[in-house]
Amino acid sequence: MTSPLADDVGFLLSRASGLVVRATNEALAGIGLRVRSYSVLVLACDHADGISQRDLAAALGLDPSQVVALVDDLAGRGLVRRAPSPADRRTKLVVATAPGRELRERAAGLAADAGRRRLGRLSGAERATLRDLLARVVTDPA
Amino acid sequence: MTSPLADDVGFLLSRASGLVVRATNEALAGIGLRVRSYSVLVLACDHADGISQRDLAAALGLDPSQVVALVDDLAGRGLVRRAPSPADRRTKLVVATAPGRELRERAAGLAADAGRRRLGRLSGAERATLRDLLARVVTDPA
Repeated sequence: MTSPLADDVGFLLSRASGLVVRATNEALAGIGLRVRSYSVLVLACDHADGISQRDLAAALGLDPSQVVALVDDLAGRGLVRRAPSPADRRTKLVVATAPGRELRERAAGLAADAGRRRLGRLSGAERATLRDLLARVVTDPA
Repeated sequence: MTSPLADDVGFLLSRASGLVVRATNEALAGIGLRVRSYSVLVLACDHADGISQRDLAAALGLDPSQVVALVDDLAGRGLVRRAPSPADRRTKLVVATAPGRELRERAAGLAADAGRRRLGRLSGAERATLRDLLARVVTDPA
């Protein structure tokens, strides 16, 4: 019997996300990262002057306390550091270190391979369509 | 600066899923359900003879221990019950009760409304495309 669940976009999103996250976590395990810590590292690398923990939480859809734990872990391994914001010294910005940037490059290749393998049944054009539709869902302010 | 994260299908899946799950959890909070417990209830309702906890775990991508906790909660509220399998009495099947079936109908309407609102920027045809692509990712045995 086919369940109506299988037609529910929310359910499909949740399942597909779980499968890709699991595959990516497995791919990143060898370098001590998981999808969430890798995402924090990417955002820190892509903001040359650093990014606040509040902005990290908003970008990743996480609670601030989760972001603090992820940054603590990365900082303890020397991959990022916290620096005071030039605009407001009470705000700490998360900045990637040189070893953090190196690890991010390795992680990017591993994560991309894992994602491609997991989405292997889709053609390149279909992956692009999926990406565009998801990007619109994610940027919808609703 | 645009982050490459925004082009990563895995990241987009994870974010989109989180947004839809959050919206659906909010919609279901008034009737004491969350996406996961609702999914267990739907699967129990859709298998007239019941579904094993092992099959629930596989269908939902959850650990068996998570499924046991969800079934315990639903059973404690009288929405499902555990019955021995006719094929093997050591296997317990999860069966929906009449109150469980009633609540599932109410939940389905609330969840569908929440999903449509959250995906409101997509047209009906685009939602259908997204659903089809996700369904193929989810059913890929890779």
